[in-house]
Amino acid sequence: MQPWTDPGPASARWAPSTPLSEVPAACQEVLQAYLEQCREEFGGIDPLLETTLDALADFILGGGKRVRPTLAWAGVRAAWEGGGGHPHDGDNEGGVPPQAYLAAVSSLELIQACALIHDDIIDASDLRRGRPTVHRVFEKQHRDHSWHGSPEHYGISQALLAGDLVFAWADDMLTDSGVPTRHQVRARPAWRAMRTEVIVGQQLDIAVEARGSEDVADSLKVVKYKTASYTATRPLHLGASLGGADERTVDLLCQVGQQIGTAFQLRDDQLGVFGDPAVTGKPSGDDLRTGKRTALINSALARGTAAQRTELHEALGSISSDADVERMRKVIIATGAQDHIEDTIHGLTDSANTALHNSWLHSSIIDELVGFASRLTNRRF
Amino acid sequence: MQPWTDPGPASARWAPSTPLSEVPAACQEVLQAYLEQCREEFGGIDPLLETTLDALADFILGGGKRVRPTLAWAGVRAAWEGGGGHPHDGDNEGGVPPQAYLAAVSSLELIQACALIHDDIIDASDLRRGRPTVHRVFEKQHRDHSWHGSPEHYGISQALLAGDLVFAWADDMLTDSGVPTRHQVRARPAWRAMRTEVIVGQQLDIAVEARGSEDVADSLKVVKYKTASYTATRPLHLGASLGGADERTVDLLCQVGQQIGTAFQLRDDQLGVFGDPAVTGKPSGDDLRTGKRTALINSALARGTAAQRTELHEALGSISSDADVERMRKVIIATGAQDHIEDTIHGLTDSANTALHNSWLHSSIIDELVGFASRLTNRRF
Repeated sequence: MQPWTDPGPASARWAPSTPLSEVPAACQEVLQAYLEQCREEFGGIDPLLETTLDALADFILGGGKRVRPTLAWAGVRAAWEGGGGHPHDGDNEGGVPPQAYLAAVSSLELIQACALIHDDIIDASDLRRGRPTVHRVFEKQHRDHSWHGSPEHYGISQALLAGDLVFAWADDMLTDSGVPTRHQVRARPAWRAMRTEVIVGQQLDIAVEARGSEDVADSLKVVKYKTASYTATRPLHLGASLGGADERTVDLLCQVGQQIGTAFQLRDDQLGVFGDPAVTGKPSGDDLRTGKRTALINSALARGTAAQRTELHEALGSISSDADVERMRKVIIATGAQDHIEDTIHGLTDSANTALHNSWLHSSIIDELVGFASRLTNRRF
Repeated sequence: MQPWTDPGPASARWAPSTPLSEVPAACQEVLQAYLEQCREEFGGIDPLLETTLDALADFILGGGKRVRPTLAWAGVRAAWEGGGGHPHDGDNEGGVPPQAYLAAVSSLELIQACALIHDDIIDASDLRRGRPTVHRVFEKQHRDHSWHGSPEHYGISQALLAGDLVFAWADDMLTDSGVPTRHQVRARPAWRAMRTEVIVGQQLDIAVEARGSEDVADSLKVVKYKTASYTATRPLHLGASLGGADERTVDLLCQVGQQIGTAFQLRDDQLGVFGDPAVTGKPSGDDLRTGKRTALINSALARGTAAQRTELHEALGSISSDADVERMRKVIIATGAQDHIEDTIHGLTDSANTALHNSWLHSSIIDELVGFASRLTNRRF
């Protein structure tokens, strides 16, 4: 059975020209069908695995903006709308259902699930999307049954393995998607680069944090690998390759993806300091409270006067009250860092838009991609 | 560049009929070349990654019996020696170098590296193959530089990610091996099953341990998934599929692999209680000291008298002196568990040998496989 076989109405309607806005609903159906298939295939091994399968299903189907599958689908459509590919190119069996490409791009959410489950272990987070993190779910099971050993360690061990499992399933979902092998082979470099870059970016993030680096170049390098490449560049690259895009289109989308992805993370940095908790769902000035050295905060430190630097250093990570947050916001604004990051965001999105509008792609996909990128980089949550 | 391009003398000699005994040396060369390739490709991202690349190279090239690549190569040769495949079957470019298959089977060592790195985190092990485990390497780096935060947590976080990285690279190494795509597609089910079974087997092991189960059936289920499938069944299955074996050969090798793999683990259980520390390199009665519930120990508990059970329960996990070990060995022997496990090992290997000798495969590969299996199941370390 293939992951897209009759999963639901949104994917049943799937066509080569389906708008980006329909990815999240269809992706949800396809992921649900794929996880049910895995349950049929492996659930029988032992009842103990139900916990893993339930935890993964709750986690994967419980939320997420589906940004990566949406951008990957944009890559597929770009290939088909002026990028040198065709919906039936590479198809030797007289008809590749568009659902095959939907399944292929949806597999990115399984890599994302592994990344988040492992990040939550690394950050010792209790909550994700308003629910207990996967390691806490296993920890609670251990505690509820008063099993032997440490509940905390049990939770971490099982969550680590659950992440490994879904990381392997991401590959399987792509391979079983039904996209012609010839195109899957062409898409391997993007897949290889994406997985290595996100892991290496996370390693870099932890190392830079441990060293207490305040170098803006370090924070931008983390942004590049951990977020920009993984969230935008490689998904666009992957989709374009799956769709059979020509080289110039792949190059264009990689360049544009790097700009959109960087702007996306810089917006995140702004929201981490200036975001409205009512909208972001996170505490106000979250990054100030945790003391995370983002590109925004490192530029504030770099641009500030000696007095401002001292004030920031004293406050970062030790902030508790909203009044403190307000005070630090004023300092960061005074250093000019907020404006600088805002200018950078606009500069990046402008050049991405210009590159797309001046390209050979059809206006249909250009407008949708520009619109989606603008939502990503101007979002308030 | 492909992983097998000019890696060294042993792989340069590689031929369709190269004996199983030559896999470890050639595998070492191919792995070293592949890791150097990864270093060229990703090492430039940041000097901080040197630690990861060095730790992975030391770990992967520092030891290991290469059991899985050897059995996978046995599968490839079985396909070519009576199993319905041919060295140049599926080759459209006029010559697949045998090194492509060597690279494909060597990729199993990268999955093994991830499994061991993550297991060492789960078991909080300090040493592996006489060297510090990967999480301890990162922990030491953190401590040596007196970086911010907990050295222990830093070590675990970086090792977790290093394991993820090499798990992704295993896929890449298989895909880039140069084995014709048509055969790679045929090999995916074995690859998919192997990765899921080893992870799920490990989850089961931890859960069974936490529940303190003494059910022999539970320990045998862990043996089946965590060891037998992963160590023997699926490597043989993978190799046979890569070599283009027919269905009856795949079925034969899967059945034989299950028997060899189970015997392999039961031998491990025997060595864990009765092994000679001078040969095993582990403390005498290691499993008695850790209190691990192996198939051997669970059968002793199941077969023992009430008095023997009590004695075992009191001793397990709290043993310190060699005298205690000696006493418990006597108890286990008295329950008949040692003989029972020994009989099981011989029964399994005998039926595997019979199945192979009565098969349609050429005596060349049958004899080598029987010989290798006998070394695995009669080993003293």
